[in-house]
Amino acid sequence: MAAADLPLDADRLWTDIMALAEITESDRPYTRRSFSPLFLEGRAWLARRFEDAGLTARIDAAGNLIGQRKGNKPERGVIAVGSHSDTVPSGGRFDGIAGVAAGLEVARALSDANEQLDHALEVVDFLAEEPSEYGLSCVGSRGMSGMLTSQMLDMREPGGETLREALRRVGGNPDRVADARRADVKAFLELHIEQGVVLESQSLQVGIVTGIVGIRRVEITFDGAAAHAGTTPMPLRRDALVAAANTIVSVRQMAERLAAESAGYFVATVGVVNVEPNASNVVPARCRIVIDIRTTEPRLTERFMEAVSRESERHAAAAHVRRAPLVILSDGPPAICDPGLRATLGRSAEKLKLRAGDLASGAGHDTAFMARICPSAMVFVPCRNGKSHTPEEWADKHAIAEGAAVILDAVKSLDQSLPRNARENRVTA
Amino acid sequence: MAAADLPLDADRLWTDIMALAEITESDRPYTRRSFSPLFLEGRAWLARRFEDAGLTARIDAAGNLIGQRKGNKPERGVIAVGSHSDTVPSGGRFDGIAGVAAGLEVARALSDANEQLDHALEVVDFLAEEPSEYGLSCVGSRGMSGMLTSQMLDMREPGGETLREALRRVGGNPDRVADARRADVKAFLELHIEQGVVLESQSLQVGIVTGIVGIRRVEITFDGAAAHAGTTPMPLRRDALVAAANTIVSVRQMAERLAAESAGYFVATVGVVNVEPNASNVVPARCRIVIDIRTTEPRLTERFMEAVSRESERHAAAAHVRRAPLVILSDGPPAICDPGLRATLGRSAEKLKLRAGDLASGAGHDTAFMARICPSAMVFVPCRNGKSHTPEEWADKHAIAEGAAVILDAVKSLDQSLPRNARENRVTA
Repeated sequence: MAAADLPLDADRLWTDIMALAEITESDRPYTRRSFSPLFLEGRAWLARRFEDAGLTARIDAAGNLIGQRKGNKPERGVIAVGSHSDTVPSGGRFDGIAGVAAGLEVARALSDANEQLDHALEVVDFLAEEPSEYGLSCVGSRGMSGMLTSQMLDMREPGGETLREALRRVGGNPDRVADARRADVKAFLELHIEQGVVLESQSLQVGIVTGIVGIRRVEITFDGAAAHAGTTPMPLRRDALVAAANTIVSVRQMAERLAAESAGYFVATVGVVNVEPNASNVVPARCRIVIDIRTTEPRLTERFMEAVSRESERHAAAAHVRRAPLVILSDGPPAICDPGLRATLGRSAEKLKLRAGDLASGAGHDTAFMARICPSAMVFVPCRNGKSHTPEEWADKHAIAEGAAVILDAVKSLDQSLPRNARENRVTA
Repeated sequence: MAAADLPLDADRLWTDIMALAEITESDRPYTRRSFSPLFLEGRAWLARRFEDAGLTARIDAAGNLIGQRKGNKPERGVIAVGSHSDTVPSGGRFDGIAGVAAGLEVARALSDANEQLDHALEVVDFLAEEPSEYGLSCVGSRGMSGMLTSQMLDMREPGGETLREALRRVGGNPDRVADARRADVKAFLELHIEQGVVLESQSLQVGIVTGIVGIRRVEITFDGAAAHAGTTPMPLRRDALVAAANTIVSVRQMAERLAAESAGYFVATVGVVNVEPNASNVVPARCRIVIDIRTTEPRLTERFMEAVSRESERHAAAAHVRRAPLVILSDGPPAICDPGLRATLGRSAEKLKLRAGDLASGAGHDTAFMARICPSAMVFVPCRNGKSHTPEEWADKHAIAEGAAVILDAVKSLDQSLPRNARENRVTA
């Protein structure tokens, strides 16, 4: 389908994405970290764009920026579309942003066409989807799904500020975070770049996400003894880094083995290493690593955890260092996308004559939390070479517009087809 | 020998060490980093103590603080005694400092006893013996031995200041650094804590150092590709940390093997790991490690380097990452302590009825550079549990005084025994 045939304005959508990309740390594009002044600048810009589109903008208790378009029948509740506007350090222009901008464009396209919906439509910019300095991801969608605990709000960034304080700083209300939990959202849809190569390699225009991996982050700390790198003979060392390096090697080998079994999607990564004192002439006293484990099959996580625990303990013993108990920093179960919504998205893609296919998401998304409170689904659009979380991240203007058009069409269908008198949301995940 | 029998003032010596220890970063004792304001404060205090002892204080072109006691026959040249007053971060109170204070006490004891020497006596506080933020150790003794090159002076700390600028800031003259090279020093002696457990385990009071390990520092950088930790299947990864972790494991195994051969003292340590971007949800794009290699046998270094080069290349290939060429950050050959001076020290220890023994130094010292321009030797004193480069570092008052007394006696002997008409210094190393 050519751009001119899409029932929305691809250029207007693209212009929004590019404008938001300009709000970045200048020396390391594209960086707009949650809770930072630049993040607030981006949100102020977004709120203005919401208001320009006739939406009523507000920030909920969990710090989510929400633009609402009124529905004809308020008792029918809300259809929500959204994603997030924060980025990883030196990230890309599309991850999250494309989904927020798509939601905004859906609202504008409805108004341009004078389409009145029975449901209210909400465009959501979820707070802090990316892992932030406070050690937590998906802060806003946790809040909206009632999963943001007081313990999480007590987490601190290295400078000492609590997430509670940071949430207040960005306009949320940590004292009333329970108010952010929604019972009136009847369906949630998110557009996102794939961040992988499945769509590209299969020449698909749209991906309909079947499920989202669960993500567990595990911290392992090894405590040895600082010693002079010159005067401490090899057999007398208690080198924390040696135990950690052996564990990193084991993590890789075990992850390769589980992935090769094909019993489900499985990846594991050590992305963080902190060595103390990290000086060339001192035998490392302490080493901390963080393992990121993702799978659609929770039992694979359990098998992996057992192996990591056993192997890290063995490596610690061999290096004469102490391994602290494994700390689970965060743990999100896998989420299933709603079959009804997926079918609706499939029909919309077909109507728009777009080549669509099913795939699992290896990345976490706000949808994984929204799926706990309402039927939720995701549309993936292709991104070049699967690159994401890097300034090279790229998605074509037309590809994003096609994904947004599928969501627009699905929103219109859902407005008619969603159950009218459901007392409780039907959640399959 | 009881403290009262020693020909110097053990309390006065101890008081100096404790006073200098007080000049530290208050939140991380004991830290007095070279080139820092605290370092300059320590030196101002030392210069006053030098002047109080009747020494003439000056700073040479290489930034060394020197206190001189005139000799009766200036044409006979100089006997130098010294060490360094800078510390590693969160270091100890004795490493380096004890040697500078011992030199000062030797000068004071000579004056107290109205001993006139033919040679001038110089007490030296060498600049920046510990590796500094500029990436170089033994800056002052390199300068005094003519080994401080223009290329080294161009090294920069992370903030961008060159060593050249820093040297000027502490009173040296980088434009005339060649002037710091000495031809008139006829013998050099250094007292230092052992930083190991040999003396303690053998109940020795004094160690006479046979030689000082050569130290080579090697940087290896692995370049992979940043990728999303969730959406990048295991087989498609180019994980720089995996290659680095395998290399750290290999370094340990190879070092254990070479040390076990007992063909010479050998240790190797990976103390520094830098991961980029060091985020839990990003496959590491780049990893840099620094290997510290120390041995008394240069051929062991060469064998080790070959093995490291081969193994790191193999690990890089297996992880589909690029290993940059190995970079030798610094390289000091082993140094042999002068047999004549060692014999003199041995006789002095015997005269003082101290249990002395020979040992190699696994730590680098300013003596390794001084040995290039004049007969040089070292006296080790025991330190508790071998601990050094940590606030727990401890040497007994009496142990330090005993070592200083050996040096005092050796200085008096050398003043008589050193060759009278040597045109050039005899250097055996």
